[in-house]
Amino acid sequence: MTWRAQPITLYPEMFPGPLGHSLAGRALADKIWSLTPLQLRDFATDRHRSVDDTPAGGGAGMVLRVDVLAAAIDAARRRHPALPVIALTPRGPRLTQARVRALAAGPGVTLLCGRFEGFDERIFPGRDVEPLCIGDYILSGGEPAALVLLDACIRLLPGVMGAALSGVEESFESGLLEAPHYTRPVSWEGRDIPDVLRSGDHARIEEWRRTRALADTSLWRPDLVRPLARGTIAPKRAEEK
Amino acid sequence: MTWRAQPITLYPEMFPGPLGHSLAGRALADKIWSLTPLQLRDFATDRHRSVDDTPAGGGAGMVLRVDVLAAAIDAARRRHPALPVIALTPRGPRLTQARVRALAAGPGVTLLCGRFEGFDERIFPGRDVEPLCIGDYILSGGEPAALVLLDACIRLLPGVMGAALSGVEESFESGLLEAPHYTRPVSWEGRDIPDVLRSGDHARIEEWRRTRALADTSLWRPDLVRPLARGTIAPKRAEEK
Repeated sequence: MTWRAQPITLYPEMFPGPLGHSLAGRALADKIWSLTPLQLRDFATDRHRSVDDTPAGGGAGMVLRVDVLAAAIDAARRRHPALPVIALTPRGPRLTQARVRALAAGPGVTLLCGRFEGFDERIFPGRDVEPLCIGDYILSGGEPAALVLLDACIRLLPGVMGAALSGVEESFESGLLEAPHYTRPVSWEGRDIPDVLRSGDHARIEEWRRTRALADTSLWRPDLVRPLARGTIAPKRAEEK
Repeated sequence: MTWRAQPITLYPEMFPGPLGHSLAGRALADKIWSLTPLQLRDFATDRHRSVDDTPAGGGAGMVLRVDVLAAAIDAARRRHPALPVIALTPRGPRLTQARVRALAAGPGVTLLCGRFEGFDERIFPGRDVEPLCIGDYILSGGEPAALVLLDACIRLLPGVMGAALSGVEESFESGLLEAPHYTRPVSWEGRDIPDVLRSGDHARIEEWRRTRALADTSLWRPDLVRPLARGTIAPKRAEEK
């Protein structure tokens, strides 16, 4: 079964972009996933092919029209009825690795890419659109965010990653950042690989990695951990985040 | 002054990707920003041009060699000494709109894009590299993340966005999500634009937008707000986040 990526966008030429190369590019050539963008402008109904209009209540920028968005989503659903419809927008919950795993396990995704000031809000209840935010910064449009979401999903599709183990011991999968990595040379500009990693003692290595994962998570991402008794910390449970 | 984007990558062909179109593409053609990728493999020293090796202490995947990374960064700094060097990695603090603004106000950025299991950790202290994470999910490599960071910066460069006002009243700039948008048609499938937005009463419209921004932020992003007295909420101060 081919996993289907169906972006709705004013810039279909932005796809596959980086996903035409490397792992995702080979998987596209191997038909592990398929890409069928829809041009939003094709669903405009007036003779100027307008997709946007000025914001109700005033303000800067332009807003994507709900009727044009709805027509594009309806066409996307006629083509692939089972795909969830997701809008990339700062006005939504953050994308998580758990959501990525669920999407990768499904049939694919239709991705609504915004431009200008955003979407007419009525599209969310009106067409059962799920809002998702890839991070707390503003992009020129949803297309780079769609490429990120697709890349995260595609690497998890069966047959894409070479080593079966890869993807398991990684940051966020355990609720923590992963431990730091080292490789040859053992000594570089006076900085050595930590002794424990060259000890061959697998129990000590695991213990060191667990400790470093906790320490680095509390340093860089204190929002991911909670204090425990006796000066130690633990990953937050999912429901606490 | 041209703003400089200098990705260090095994896949220079992934750039400019989506940034070759629309706003960013026009700004690239207008020399508002420039793009000069470095091929990491050019800095390998052995006859197989290896850039990676197995992880010290065992485990899946491959790790990018510190000596190869350092040689690439040194070449990048010889070309453009003033650019900060940022590595896209899940092992780091999250990218924020404040960091985007600071980067856009500077001379540009050198971006280290990882592949495989990641970077040899010694590169961070050894070459003063800043780790940044665009979100809590795992990508096949740093390139899609680099494109996102560049897009966020480029739209803020002088002359890129048409309307001078755009970019001010947006999500995260105030510490809150922005209020929902609406545009014509006034009535669509039984869903109307809220009356207040058609009232012409600018004070009421501002009040409604502030209330909706607070309500939607507490619904989708409770991590961004804190409770106040009497059942109201306020954005967290930067130092609380």
